[in-house]
Amino acid sequence: MKKVIFITVIVFLAVFILSSAKPLPDTTKIKNEIQTILYRQKEAWNKGNIEGFMEDYWNSKNLTFQSGNKRLYGWDTLLSRYKTNFSGENMGKLDFTDIKIKVMSNSIAYVLGRWKLEFKDSSKEGLFTIIFQRKPEGWKIIHDHSS
Amino acid sequence: MKKVIFITVIVFLAVFILSSAKPLPDTTKIKNEIQTILYRQKEAWNKGNIEGFMEDYWNSKNLTFQSGNKRLYGWDTLLSRYKTNFSGENMGKLDFTDIKIKVMSNSIAYVLGRWKLEFKDSSKEGLFTIIFQRKPEGWKIIHDHSS
Repeated sequence: MKKVIFITVIVFLAVFILSSAKPLPDTTKIKNEIQTILYRQKEAWNKGNIEGFMEDYWNSKNLTFQSGNKRLYGWDTLLSRYKTNFSGENMGKLDFTDIKIKVMSNSIAYVLGRWKLEFKDSSKEGLFTIIFQRKPEGWKIIHDHSS
Repeated sequence: MKKVIFITVIVFLAVFILSSAKPLPDTTKIKNEIQTILYRQKEAWNKGNIEGFMEDYWNSKNLTFQSGNKRLYGWDTLLSRYKTNFSGENMGKLDFTDIKIKVMSNSIAYVLGRWKLEFKDSSKEGLFTIIFQRKPEGWKIIHDHSS
């Protein structure tokens, strides 16, 4: 009987150890998940859907956004910024290139990339750094620095 | 005798579990460490010591730096950029303000801030996002986006 308890305890603890050890991130899977998000954002933008574009930003007052010389806090503030600066025809066609996804852990990643907006007679482009964190609801952008 | 072995194994496994569980980051300690680095960088810059300023950047070809519309790779490239753009009188007096340090784990943190360079008759300022990773040699900047 004692032997049975002993073995049970050992097996139980072995399972516990394996489950509590820090797992290595599945880099390929995470990169695919983030690629999907970037593609979804681009598609939403190009359909004139600013709310759709904003869905992958963390819906929190702690979301941060830096551009040029200005820092914004909060999802609502960022949505207002996009709505003020862009609408309908004025949104242009968005594309992302030169994407580098860096997976830091199972719940943290960051992305470097180049954004380009093509309008009827002009275009704009620049670089971005976005930081993703895996939340209970999925990967969310918690910080964006665009220039 | 069996009981002694049993207890020994349990204690051994308990210690193993505690040591393998993912520890919570010591946010206050990490924030202090990063504040110290930022202060040291500022001091080095203001002494005209570009190499000193560069010491807290990851000395790797995988270091990344984005500014305006340009991305650079590698510690050597960034050092050259600073040496080309700044020297002696031309370096100005550097200050960092509006610092927000975000500790993501025991080995990952990022910092938002405002940089300002005061020259004799002019000044420049902008924002930065820097990502730190704890390396065997200590916390290092692995990515910098300045605008």
